[in-house]
Amino acid sequence: MNYSEKYTMYAREVLMQKVQMRMSERRFKHVLGVEETAITLAKKYGVSLEKASIAALTHDYAKERPNDEFILVINRDGYDKELLNYGNAIWHGLVGADFVSRELGIMDEEILQAIRLHTTGAAEMSLLDKIIYVADYIEPGRSFPGVKEARELAFVDLDEVVAFETKHTLEHLLMQEQKIYPKTIETYNYWVAN
Amino acid sequence: MNYSEKYTMYAREVLMQKVQMRMSERRFKHVLGVEETAITLAKKYGVSLEKASIAALTHDYAKERPNDEFILVINRDGYDKELLNYGNAIWHGLVGADFVSRELGIMDEEILQAIRLHTTGAAEMSLLDKIIYVADYIEPGRSFPGVKEARELAFVDLDEVVAFETKHTLEHLLMQEQKIYPKTIETYNYWVAN
Repeated sequence: MNYSEKYTMYAREVLMQKVQMRMSERRFKHVLGVEETAITLAKKYGVSLEKASIAALTHDYAKERPNDEFILVINRDGYDKELLNYGNAIWHGLVGADFVSRELGIMDEEILQAIRLHTTGAAEMSLLDKIIYVADYIEPGRSFPGVKEARELAFVDLDEVVAFETKHTLEHLLMQEQKIYPKTIETYNYWVAN
Repeated sequence: MNYSEKYTMYAREVLMQKVQMRMSERRFKHVLGVEETAITLAKKYGVSLEKASIAALTHDYAKERPNDEFILVINRDGYDKELLNYGNAIWHGLVGADFVSRELGIMDEEILQAIRLHTTGAAEMSLLDKIIYVADYIEPGRSFPGVKEARELAFVDLDEVVAFETKHTLEHLLMQEQKIYPKTIETYNYWVAN
């Protein structure tokens, strides 16, 4: 991998250890899969490999935090109280980025934004945002009907796979009768609907 | 039908004529179907038959207005400009109620609210709101997979059919890759998701 030498030699190892401490073995394996995919996509689309690696390694950093900790931050740090009606599925990205910056010292706004948006997407997404959003969906450990098509599409047209993922995620939420966060609809209206 | 005598003798006929003038024969037939269903549901759930009749007869009053007229009203009357990103499917109810009050002199806020919400639903809905929302979906002229189940459900549990309709409407929008108005997601999150 073409990281900068400094990142390869030290920071990535430290980051991996800090992330690994915070999650199950199974989730850590997922994280490494997302990193692998994100780096491949970053090469293809000309995005910083270092940023792709850091965003991927930290995107689920807060996934196994207890709800209490998210609720405290949402109440304390001026988040819209409407967010309290959702749960870990939404919080671990949107609010999880705060834990990443506070506890891991990652201050790069592009990386933090990719973490924030990795579950819901957004109407406006940078290349890095799209790469993390898509890598989380298609990493080698994922297995669901359509994943093969999504993987192929990811190397042809990143915007198409953002649309594909958004539509299929919504279909899944509907089928499961799970709550839909409004930002997911913004993403759908922008990337899928005409 | 148990309308008040005054409504039966005069107002309903006048209203029907005014509505009929504004739409195709096919749509007018739909409107009469919605009225018939709304009145049956109003009897079942103890809602004013007169209000159910008026709301049903006028719910699509603005459906065949040109976009220009809606855009003018949205820009002039303090609507959220975001509404301009949608179209007749959303406008004819939400903004259409303004045409009903202005042109037909209907000032009853319960009726106007039922017209406003008849396409998107809402988290908070009165019995009349639910009846118009549901009647529009199950009136005798409707034919789609699931309509029979929805009709049966409507006479068992009105809230269940609000949920059924909302979920199936969203599935249909997704399948067609049509824009989803955020209020529809509010309705879904409240009535369908847990």
